[in-house]
This record gives sequence, C-alpha cells and structure tokens, in this order.
Amino acid sequence: MKAVIIDGGFGLENLQFADRPDPEPGPGQVLLRMKAASLNFRDLLTVRGLYNPRQPLPLIPCSDGVGEVIGLGDGVTRLAAGDRVCPIFAQDWLAGTPHRDQVRSTLGGPLDGTLAELMVVNAESVVKVPAYLTDEEAAALPCAAVTAWTALVTEGEIQAGDTVLVQGTGGVSLFALLIARLHGARVIITSSSDDKLVRAKDLGASDGINYVSEPEWGKIARQLTDKVGVDHVVEVGGAATLDQSLRAIRVGGRISIIGVLSGVQATIPLTAILMSNVRLQGILVGHRASFEALCRALAQASARPVIDSTFALADVRAAFEHMAAGAHFGKICIRIDQQSQ
Amino acid sequence: MKAVIIDGGFGLENLQFADRPDPEPGPGQVLLRMKAASLNFRDLLTVRGLYNPRQPLPLIPCSDGVGEVIGLGDGVTRLAAGDRVCPIFAQDWLAGTPHRDQVRSTLGGPLDGTLAELMVVNAESVVKVPAYLTDEEAAALPCAAVTAWTALVTEGEIQAGDTVLVQGTGGVSLFALLIARLHGARVIITSSSDDKLVRAKDLGASDGINYVSEPEWGKIARQLTDKVGVDHVVEVGGAATLDQSLRAIRVGGRISIIGVLSGVQATIPLTAILMSNVRLQGILVGHRASFEALCRALAQASARPVIDSTFALADVRAAFEHMAAGAHFGKICIRIDQQSQ
Amino acid sequence: MKAVIIDGGFGLENLQFADRPDPEPGPGQVLLRMKAASLNFRDLLTVRGLYNPRQPLPLIPCSDGVGEVIGLGDGVTRLAAGDRVCPIFAQDWLAGTPHRDQVRSTLGGPLDGTLAELMVVNAESVVKVPAYLTDEEAAALPCAAVTAWTALVTEGEIQAGDTVLVQGTGGVSLFALLIARLHGARVIITSSSDDKLVRAKDLGASDGINYVSEPEWGKIARQLTDKVGVDHVVEVGGAATLDQSLRAIRVGGRISIIGVLSGVQATIPLTAILMSNVRLQGILVGHRASFEALCRALAQASARPVIDSTFALADVRAAFEHMAAGAHFGKICIRIDQQSQ
Amino acid sequence: MKAVIIDGGFGLENLQFADRPDPEPGPGQVLLRMKAASLNFRDLLTVRGLYNPRQPLPLIPCSDGVGEVIGLGDGVTRLAAGDRVCPIFAQDWLAGTPHRDQVRSTLGGPLDGTLAELMVVNAESVVKVPAYLTDEEAAALPCAAVTAWTALVTEGEIQAGDTVLVQGTGGVSLFALLIARLHGARVIITSSSDDKLVRAKDLGASDGINYVSEPEWGKIARQLTDKVGVDHVVEVGGAATLDQSLRAIRVGGRISIIGVLSGVQATIPLTAILMSNVRLQGILVGHRASFEALCRALAQASARPVIDSTFALADVRAAFEHMAAGAHFGKICIRIDQQSQ
Repeated sequence: MKAVIIDGGFGLENLQFADRPDPEPGPGQVLLRMKAASLNFRDLLTVRGLYNPRQPLPLIPCSDGVGEVIGLGDGVTRLAAGDRVCPIFAQDWLAGTPHRDQVRSTLGGPLDGTLAELMVVNAESVVKVPAYLTDEEAAALPCAAVTAWTALVTEGEIQAGDTVLVQGTGGVSLFALLIARLHGARVIITSSSDDKLVRAKDLGASDGINYVSEPEWGKIARQLTDKVGVDHVVEVGGAATLDQSLRAIRVGGRISIIGVLSGVQATIPLTAILMSNVRLQGILVGHRASFEALCRALAQASARPVIDSTFALADVRAAFEHMAAGAHFGKICIRIDQQSQ
Repeated sequence: MKAVIIDGGFGLENLQFADRPDPEPGPGQVLLRMKAASLNFRDLLTVRGLYNPRQPLPLIPCSDGVGEVIGLGDGVTRLAAGDRVCPIFAQDWLAGTPHRDQVRSTLGGPLDGTLAELMVVNAESVVKVPAYLTDEEAAALPCAAVTAWTALVTEGEIQAGDTVLVQGTGGVSLFALLIARLHGARVIITSSSDDKLVRAKDLGASDGINYVSEPEWGKIARQLTDKVGVDHVVEVGGAATLDQSLRAIRVGGRISIIGVLSGVQATIPLTAILMSNVRLQGILVGHRASFEALCRALAQASARPVIDSTFALADVRAAFEHMAAGAHFGKICIRIDQQSQ
Repeated sequence: MKAVIIDGGFGLENLQFADRPDPEPGPGQVLLRMKAASLNFRDLLTVRGLYNPRQPLPLIPCSDGVGEVIGLGDGVTRLAAGDRVCPIFAQDWLAGTPHRDQVRSTLGGPLDGTLAELMVVNAESVVKVPAYLTDEEAAALPCAAVTAWTALVTEGEIQAGDTVLVQGTGGVSLFALLIARLHGARVIITSSSDDKLVRAKDLGASDGINYVSEPEWGKIARQLTDKVGVDHVVEVGGAATLDQSLRAIRVGGRISIIGVLSGVQATIPLTAILMSNVRLQGILVGHRASFEALCRALAQASARPVIDSTFALADVRAAFEHMAAGAHFGKICIRIDQQSQ
Repeated sequence: MKAVIIDGGFGLENLQFADRPDPEPGPGQVLLRMKAASLNFRDLLTVRGLYNPRQPLPLIPCSDGVGEVIGLGDGVTRLAAGDRVCPIFAQDWLAGTPHRDQVRSTLGGPLDGTLAELMVVNAESVVKVPAYLTDEEAAALPCAAVTAWTALVTEGEIQAGDTVLVQGTGGVSLFALLIARLHGARVIITSSSDDKLVRAKDLGASDGINYVSEPEWGKIARQLTDKVGVDHVVEVGGAATLDQSLRAIRVGGRISIIGVLSGVQATIPLTAILMSNVRLQGILVGHRASFEALCRALAQASARPVIDSTFALADVRAAFEHMAAGAHFGKICIRIDQQSQ
C-alpha cells in the first residue's frame, strides 16, 4: 500500500510517499481501506517538528480520517465488513476520565496516522459515522469536532440560551459554532477578516467582532451580553487571547483551553480567575463516547461540517501549505483513493 | 381589588369573586398588577379538593401568572416599576437543592395564587420575562415550562442527539417538546388523538404514537430508536403509563416523574429499574434559577408557548371546565384586567 | 482443571464438579489461577434458576473471585505474570454510561464465572487488588462492594456529613456502611437481629433500628435526622421496604435500587417521589473505573471487608446453603486451591 | 456600640476604635451580638489597602465572625433569639451559580464586617453553627473553611482514595487538610518549616515536603503517587507555585485557585493545562449551602478547626501584626466581648 510519511527529518519538504506492505488485522482488530483524511493545525506542527521534536521518524502523519472496514481480525463482533468508520484520536480512550497512557495513544504521532491507503486499528477504537455525510465530511470529525463537543457538551454542559465566544474560524471554532447552535446557544465569533465574519454569521453566529480593528474584543463581547459576560469561551489562541477571554467571561463562566496558536506561555492574571470564579479546562480532544454522541447530534439535525477544500493524496504537500497560509475557512481534506487493489 | 376565591367548600361551583382590600408591599416586597394567569391540572385538582383536601379556605387559586410591578417596598433594588414579572411557583426556592420548607412555599395553595387583580410577593420571588412574549404566553411559563426545563435540562442534562419520549399534549408535554427541540433533541410523542399528533409533528416531533390504537407504545418507541431505547421519558401519566415508559427507556436512561394523571399508586417492576440502570427523578417544578435559564433559552430562539385559549377573568369557571374536558392543546389562559384604578 | 458447574437442571442439588480442559489465553487475554471466590445473593438465585430461568446450562456460577495472572496472551501490556486481580462483574463495561451489551456481559451468567481453578478473561476486564487484602477479602469486592460504591459515590456523590440509611447486613449493605464511613457520612442501619445491629454499630453505624420490632422504621430514621430525612437510602429489599424508604428520605434525596430480596413488583406511591423530588436510581453493580476507585479508597484507609466465613471449594454446596439460611454477617467466601499443577 | 474601623487612610496604624450607634434590625433582618471574629489574609490586605485600593473608608474590617441573635426584625421566622450564627462571606449568595452582584456582597469590604460588638444582617445571610464548637472555632469558618469545602467538595467532588496536595499551613490549607481527611482522602502538604510539617502530619497528612529544601516539590508529589500525579491541588501561592502544581497534578486533575500570596500575575504553561486535561477553578469562597454542608460534616466527626491564637478586641492591631509575621499555624481569632449592655 501507499502511505505518506515524514522521513529523514521534519519539515514539509520531508513529506514523501512510501510503499508499505499491506497490513493485516490481528485478533480484535480491523483493516480499513481509507477514503479521506483531514488536516489539523497539530498535524502541521507535527510535520514541522514543533509538536513533539522527539517524535521518532518515519511517521505517517494526521490523526483524522475515514475508512471502510474490509477485514476483520479474530473475535471482532462490534463491526462488519462495509462499515464506514473513523479511527478515534486517542485510540485507547473510550470513556470516562483518561489515564495517562490513554491520552498518549494518539494517531499521527506517536502512532502512525491516517494518510495511508490501508490502516489497521483495534475494533474498539473506531466510531461508525452517519451515512449522509460525505467521506470528506466524516474525515473532518475526529479531532476538531470532538474537541468542540468535549469543550461545550461533555465538559461544558451547554444549555439553550447560553452565550459562547468562539475565536477565529478554524476547524475547532466552526465546529464549536455548529454545536453551540445545535444546542440553542448564541454564538459571538471573532476573526481578523470581515469576510469570514459574514460567513460565520451565515452559519448562525449572532455577532462577529474583528479582533484586528477591535483589540478590546473581550470587552465588546461582554457588552453584547448586557455586561453579564459570556458563559463559555472556546480558547484557541493562547497567550495573546486569554487576557481578552477573561474580560469577556461571566462570573462562574468556563474557558476551554483548546490550542496555543499564539504561544504556549501565557501570562495570566490569576486574580481574574479567582475573583470571577472562572473555570479553565484543558481539552485534549475527547473519548469515543463523546465522538458517538457527536455523531448522533449531527445526524439528528443532518448537520454538515464546513469543508474548505479537498486535495488529492498526491497533493498532500499543497494541502499542508494551504493550511500554513491560514486563509482557509473550515476543514482541509485529503481524498485517499487506493491506486491498485 | 377583585380576586377569584374558592370558598365554602371545594368544587368548581364554589369558585367565586371576592372584593379584597388592595394589598401593600412591605419591605423587600413588590406589588404587582396582574395581567394574565394560566391553568395547570394541579389547579383543577386544587379547586376540586383533590390535591390537598386539608387546604384551608378561602384560597385564591392558580400558581401561574404575570404582572407589572407597580409598587416597591423598602429596600427593593432588584426590580423597578414597570418590570413585567412572573411570580415563581415555590416562592422560597431560588437555587440549589430544595429544603423541605422551600418546596412547600407554593402559590395557588397553600399560599394565595395569581387569580387576583393585585398581588404582593417578595422581590426575590419573581422572574423578569422576555419582552417579546404576550402576557398570556408569559403567564403560561411558571409551572409547566419550568417543570419541563427542570426535567430535561437542570436534572436531565439533555444533549443534542438525545431522544425524548413525551406523553400527551398537555402543558408540560408541549413545553418538553419545545425545550427538547431547542437543544437539538429528537422527540417522540404520544396522544389519543391523531389530530393532536399531527399538530405535535408540526411543532417538531419526529414521531407520534396513538396510545389508544397502540397500547404497546413503549415497545414502538424503542423500535423507533433502533431498539436502543429513548434517553428521557417525561412521565405525566403515572400508574397507567410507567410500565410502557420502562419498556421505552434505554439502559441508563432517565424518567422524570412529573404528574399522576392516571393514578397515584403505580405498581412498578423494580427489576426493570434495576436491570436497566434507570433513573426515576421526581420533579416538583423547579427553582428560580431554572426559570431564568428557561427565559434566556426561549428568548434566544424567540420561541413561544402554545396557547390553547384565553378566557376573561369573569369566565374563570368556563376555563376550568375547558381544562376538565381535556380537549385542549397547549395552555389555557385567563386575562386579568383590573376594572377600576 | 476442576470447575463447579450447574448442570442437568437448576437447584443446589445440581451443583457439581467437572473436569475441563485447561483454558489458554488468546491475544489480549490473560490466564488466571483462581485463589478465592465469594457468593452473592444473585448467585444463589442463579443456581436455583430464579435469576434467569432461560440461562443455558452447564454454567460455572459466581461473578466474584480473585486470581493470579499466570499466562499472558499476545499483545498484553496492561498486566504482568504474578499480578493479583479480580475479574470485573460486567466484563465489557469499563467506564461511562453503559451500552446494553455491556451490562449483559456478566460473569456467573450468562458468562461462565469464577468457581474454577483456571479462568481466561480479557486483560482489560480485571482490576488489580491491593496487596494488604487477603484473597478472601479481595474476592469479596467485585459485585457487592462495587455496587455500594456506585450507589453512594459514582451516582450518589456522597459527602461528609450526609446520612445514609442502610437496610440489613448483607454484602452490599455492609460495604455501603464501610464506604459511607470512609467518606465521613453517618449511617443508620436496619436489621431483624439486635445482635447484628450491635455488630453494625461496632463497624461505625451511629444508629440501628430493628425493623421487626419497629415496622415504621422509615419514620424513625426520619426522626433521627431532626425530621429532615436521610440523604441516601441503599434499597436492597424491594417491594416490602420501598414504602418505608420513601418515609425516611429527605426532599431531594436519593434511593439506590440495588436488589429485590422481598419481591420484584413494588407498589410505589408516585406522589411521594414527585412531591419530595426524590431520585430512584437503579444500580447494576458498576464499571471498572468505579472498581479501581474503590480499591484506592480501601487501600488509603487499609479498610477490610467483613468476611462471614470461608468454605473449601469441595464444600461449595454448604456455602450456598449457608447463604440460603440467611444468618450470615458479611461475605461468604470460597477458597479455591488448585489440586494439581 | 464599639467597632474597629479603618479610617483616615489604609495601614495598620489607621486601625482604630469607634463608637457607633447601636444598629437595629429592619424587616427580614437580625441583630447579632458578636462573640468572636477571625482573620484572613484578605483582611490584612484590605487594611493595608492592597486588596481594593478604591474601598471607601471608614470600613469595619473582617469577613469572619460569630454572634448570638439578640434581635429579630419583622417577618423573620428562619431564626430565633439565642441562635448562634455566622454571617456568610458573600451575603447575597445562597446557592447555585453566583451572579455578579452576589459575589460582590462581601463582608469586610465593600460591606462593613465583623469587628464590632453588634451587627445587623439579613436573616437569610447567616448559618447556624454546631453547638460543640467554641466561639473562636465557629468564627474561624466563614471564609477559610468554606473556601476549602467549595474547592474540594462542591467543585472538587472529592472521593475517598483521592490524593490532595495542600500548599502551606495557612487557614484554607489546614481546612483543606481536615476536609480531605474527613472524606477519606490522602493529603500531601508543603511548608517551609519542618516543624509545621510535623504538626500537619499529626493532623493527618501522609506526607510533608519542605518547599525550601525541595524546590522541585511538584515532582516529588508526583513521585509519591507512583508518578500518576495528585487528583487535586489547593493552590494558594499563585505565581510562584502554579508551575510546580502543574507538575504534581495527574491527567484530568483539578487545581483550585484560592489565593495569590506570591503574586497576582502568573506565567502559566498553557500546554501543560491542555496536554494534561487539567481543570483550573477559581474559588471565591462559596455559598450558604456549602457552609451549611460544611457544618454538617464537621459536626458528624466532631472535628475542630486549628486555632493558632486568640487576641482581645483591644489588641486587634497585634493580631494583624501576628498574621503579617507569618509564623502562625491555624486561625488567628479575636474575642469580642461587649463592654456594656
């Protein structure tokens, strides 16, 4: 089979194709013929060697993808040939509070990921996806959508009538917008692009704030809630944004720490956390049960992820460069079509 | 002021009008000029002496209503003249787990209720209602809508993608339908009337089951969920329906005990509760914080209660008779207009 | 290997010994040399054919036991040879809300149980037990102790200062007493034996009520809490006791439905559940994560289960008869010593 | 009556005695004859003008105290003359998620506090304290003990078997130690004093770490838990300690942000929060319901706060200087005895 690997060093220039022996499913495992994958910012960091510089190479990158079950190992009853499934991000985290080892069992590093024609995973470590979704849409879910679900639902206990502040229009953010709207919540969204704000409003955001022209966007978000403050912030920025998030949040509100686009070290005003009874919750994607609940919720509403663009597997480097350019709106997907059977 | 009272004995025939001195707000209290009230089945039972036979008379019946603040007692800062508010069902239950005394502080028995031109309540014991609702719609909320919110949200932790089984098309049931839909949940509803099922589907129910033609409706509901079972049942029937509800519920599901239309003594199969890890939760309306959250959720979606009909205060007996007939769909309201200022 | 089986029909007289081929661990599985087992009332019902009359025979009975890992299947990293572990009650329920199939994957029916010299289980389906416990004490945990933990901790969210009403002095009840005391809660216990009440007080119960001489024990329990009512009831009786439990419980309290010693059909006053905001929660033992948490809690306090008596495997019928006699106090255990290696 | 006030400027030198007219309880209020007060670090900051530099003067300082009800305003039924009660820290926060105004209704700034012979508060804004506690012990509870309870119980959902890391031996920390032990949890405590570590072990801590000789105390705490990490950290240090707390915490663990002894601006590694699924929860004392639950838990165990020393009201300045010196172990109390009746 063909696979994309990072080899010989980190960097987009080291993304290359390799021929690998076709894997076979052992007992309890399934063999997937991969249909599509999607990119996350984490994958770009991984390729560049910035996510985990000690990651051994070669590595098949990307955590997200969808495939069809074409082989069953001994004893597998959970799945059948023909099922369309997504491998879960942290392969061993099925439900409940994670153990240390469970949060480390992640695809696309340290484990080989989804950019391959065939993939073998444990039968327990996948989720069946709704039939109405295209392959690209299904491939968009495992990391970004589950992260947004965990932040707002599993940990966030979102209710209709809540107000959610979403930062930017990346993958997690647009899923947060979608999931918040599914639950009857109001969404205030930020972007550096007025055009993207318009598109976000089309998707259901009630308010958009251009954080370039309005550097005090946290204060504005608070004003938009009659000075009460927002109930949830989905914090993807990190160092540069947390301060404004703390201005936006209501007493007793919740900030989900999702990503660190703008820097891993943030100077935070502890008194703001203390005096406002705020909860900061680190969100490391989520477990299989959250992914399953997400699928039920999407299917109930026939909701679809926003797909920015789809690249052929052969153009994987262009796909990563597109992500690096930062102009996308929604998920960047990769179509995987097996060349020879 | 004029008020409706039950006096001289229970029964609709003892509903009568009385002239009472205009009440005045003491410290911490507010005076309300009542605009509208709504009826609950509990009010009918109360008038008939079936809810609490030891209730002293005379009593001003009805727990639900809306009024305008026209007088402020000393020290009131929470409200201002002109605010439109609903008194809360259990006047002393503001948030958290209730104490015994709090759940007994209920309007329409033992405390005088809303069927009066003027009403004095504690400033803490009311909730401001959204401006876009009519008086009748606002008056429909305090008991039935808060009950449905408590069952599905405060206690039920409803999520998008859940399936809710709603029994009948009474006040609580239609609010449960509305609140479930606001949260992206699927609703299966039962009724003895195919016509009402059609109307419920128009309001967003995905499936309707006629429980007369389908006495095994619990089994059917289970089949509608791929035999998994529903996540929540809003149980209003009591003895006659609990058995079917237990057939419909999924392992680990939740049944909210709301009412006892069909009998107060139910023979329940304890093994069904045990073997399916089911939770039965008694729901006694709810606290002020739930009412406030409900109002935010309704306003966010500009959602409106279903009003069956509105009677003039002079026709209060006809209103109760209309409820007793059982043909209504949605809330029965009463318009209260003060005759003389 | 030698195993105890029910064969040729239900009933204690059909409990017999069989020689079975030594099982071998497949991939992901472990082989256990069993050291001890313990009996639950469910096991007695199973042997008598009263738990699930359609259970195919032969069956190795009993869900509870402890063994030493003596063989590892391919790919097992979670355990090592020499580990002392208990198989979990529902073999596939590791954490979170259970799926239907998970709650049915139970040992001692439908799956073969622990009364055998050797046992093969999935490596994921066991819990390491603290070293300070004897084999008999460890074997006492899987069903009864995890049930009590789930009722009071996982579902019950017990806090120091709570009051727990425990019925009788069977396995679950004495674990509930222990777990409640570990959390700083007060325990009121009932029994038909004044002697057992004395022993329960020695174990930390603050109050004992003889339910034979005090048939209104629910009312007495309420009085013992300044008429507020108890926070939790661990309900093991079923039909005969639920009514008194509802008299004992406080507004907003929780009743865990554990067992149905006195009848599977209970007539319950739904209004009592409704008017007191009570929660009835069916408890079907619990998941692996609860078992692990239980072990940590016991070890932290060096707490030990109460062992009533230990029988040799050869005397298994006597052990069941001892349980049937109902005079035990604590767990009845069976020592399993492999005759030939 | 006599009261202690800060007047004419901040600073210990501006603490002085004043004669004030005896207050009288309005409707819904009670008059308390104060018996004792206790100091918190917040009170020292307030006196020095560091807590809220815009606090208008004069101010009666201190949030914590206990008094006897000697007068009842109109309509008060919740209390009776002779009841011994503590005013709650945030006077308007009774239960549930706080509103902005509720967390600002705090004694000892902006509201006048407890260092006075007489005090008038709302009848709803006090908690009855257990009879077995001395006045000084009861006065020690409202801020520090409720904070520890909120952190570990209300928000922290502590369970037996959990491990709690407690920083230092100040008021909140020693209450956290006590409350953790009441719930069957293990406590690791830090201090700069080996002597204080010995005393903390006498109170039930399993391990003590001298953070001066062991600057990598977070790493040591992790090692003490078999490298799993602790379940809870009660973070009182702030900037200087958060980094080590993040080393100590387990995946999915909880850090309660209580105080900022070492600086209000902390540079936190956001990736540590993200990658370990950690929750940081700001704790602003807590509500009345938590205070009541605390009292039940203490009474159940007849547990007593640790009192460092008691000063006469006349020596209030010495009491504050004693706190400023930082050598205390437990609460510093002030005896208030009315001079003339």
